[in-house]
Amino acid sequence: MKSKLIVSVEFGETDPAAIVFYPNFFRWFDASAWRLFAKAGLTFDVFREEFGLIGAPIVDAQATFIKPLRFEDKIEITSYVGSWKRKTFDMVHEVRRDGELCAKGVEVRVCAQRLEDGSGGIRAIPIPEEIRRQLSAAD
Amino acid sequence: MKSKLIVSVEFGETDPAAIVFYPNFFRWFDASAWRLFAKAGLTFDVFREEFGLIGAPIVDAQATFIKPLRFEDKIEITSYVGSWKRKTFDMVHEVRRDGELCAKGVEVRVCAQRLEDGSGGIRAIPIPEEIRRQLSAAD
Amino acid sequence: MKSKLIVSVEFGETDPAAIVFYPNFFRWFDASAWRLFAKAGLTFDVFREEFGLIGAPIVDAQATFIKPLRFEDKIEITSYVGSWKRKTFDMVHEVRRDGELCAKGVEVRVCAQRLEDGSGGIRAIPIPEEIRRQLSAAD
Amino acid sequence: MKSKLIVSVEFGETDPAAIVFYPNFFRWFDASAWRLFAKAGLTFDVFREEFGLIGAPIVDAQATFIKPLRFEDKIEITSYVGSWKRKTFDMVHEVRRDGELCAKGVEVRVCAQRLEDGSGGIRAIPIPEEIRRQLSAAD
Repeated sequence: MKSKLIVSVEFGETDPAAIVFYPNFFRWFDASAWRLFAKAGLTFDVFREEFGLIGAPIVDAQATFIKPLRFEDKIEITSYVGSWKRKTFDMVHEVRRDGELCAKGVEVRVCAQRLEDGSGGIRAIPIPEEIRRQLSAAD
Repeated sequence: MKSKLIVSVEFGETDPAAIVFYPNFFRWFDASAWRLFAKAGLTFDVFREEFGLIGAPIVDAQATFIKPLRFEDKIEITSYVGSWKRKTFDMVHEVRRDGELCAKGVEVRVCAQRLEDGSGGIRAIPIPEEIRRQLSAAD
Repeated sequence: MKSKLIVSVEFGETDPAAIVFYPNFFRWFDASAWRLFAKAGLTFDVFREEFGLIGAPIVDAQATFIKPLRFEDKIEITSYVGSWKRKTFDMVHEVRRDGELCAKGVEVRVCAQRLEDGSGGIRAIPIPEEIRRQLSAAD
Repeated sequence: MKSKLIVSVEFGETDPAAIVFYPNFFRWFDASAWRLFAKAGLTFDVFREEFGLIGAPIVDAQATFIKPLRFEDKIEITSYVGSWKRKTFDMVHEVRRDGELCAKGVEVRVCAQRLEDGSGGIRAIPIPEEIRRQLSAAD
């Protein structure tokens, strides 16, 4: 399954060099990840109420920036799960402007539960089969 | 040369799971990179006026998140150049809370000039020897 | 003339109370202001090239928050110029979810030029009649 | 009681005009408000555990921008409660660079509880006398 998110680059997301300040790419990746989750039926409430998860936090993130983006650029972010491990999965994000790849990134995400010891800590659990199946369904 | 930046995690940087929303780590990395540049005498004006550069944009960024951070945490970010190539250099960032490593990341940066063709485009130049020397000086 | 901007509230825009961290409303106001400018033919390039302006910076901003917004809320922001003075104009922003007013704000903007003394300073000029006419045109 | 927060303006907080993108002032106001709360003994945990509050959300915010701020500016934000009403209080923020007032703002805040109807809604309660006393103590 793949999701697509259209983003319009905003003035406040660009820097004195008039190009996008790079942490914003990761904001867009996270937004796009939630679009993929939602398309798979995994809204924030479903994560919490059906799976007892606080969400799917990121343990590693990486991005390669190929073409600088500017204010008023319209971009399309395609997101999908690239690979699965027992406790982590790679979510791939491709950023295109007019079909041209401008950036690409990978978030490594886990399924996390709140620890019950009152510490506020969290721990990763083996990825529920249901979550894997829903994110792997055909479009 | 290494720089240290103290950051206090703010309320608005945390999410509904009460942990830091991860793109903020990259905001801190960039802020810490500028601290290292400044310590080496490379302020934004020096980049522009002495070297004709728009700055040192990022072509790749990666972070590993080891311990979640929370509102009111005090963290220390240590930054230094980990390696040099002809046109890129790796800037390493280590995030510690009470001495414990909570996150680590690498930004790959270039020295960029504005293209003179009016396109607004930028291009990486070989890293000026002077910049390499200043960032490699002893503390 | 009025513009409309559809925004989907993102996970990273909400705080530990699971409601939108309020500075994000001002980010949306600015984005919506640029939509109104663009609808009136006033893109960033037009501001710079036709009017010699660095844009329309904000000298005052205010917002009233009526209903808290949450992740996954879909909102519509309606923006229009509410009043004109010689050197400032009020841009009004109304935020609605399912037709219900959730927030309302006003930005006071000026038309600003870069000072030519090399200080990097800016100054407000009387609002060009052309800009007023374009923003006041019928939809 | 007054609190002071020192902020260094970051590269990523400035826009193509090389001045601070204005929503960042509100981010700083919120950070400074929490410094004042903390100085008065009102940490996030105290709000939750001693007073049963989700915090002190903002119902109105306003700022006047007097001097533009730039990357590498060092600013000092002074915050204090300017006035009290039964259910709201005004928190005043003054932003100075080298002693010069560059911006000033007011947040109207309430003491909010989570509704117990499962809706996720919140409501303002009369300000607890203890909170008013702690924020009104001498420095």
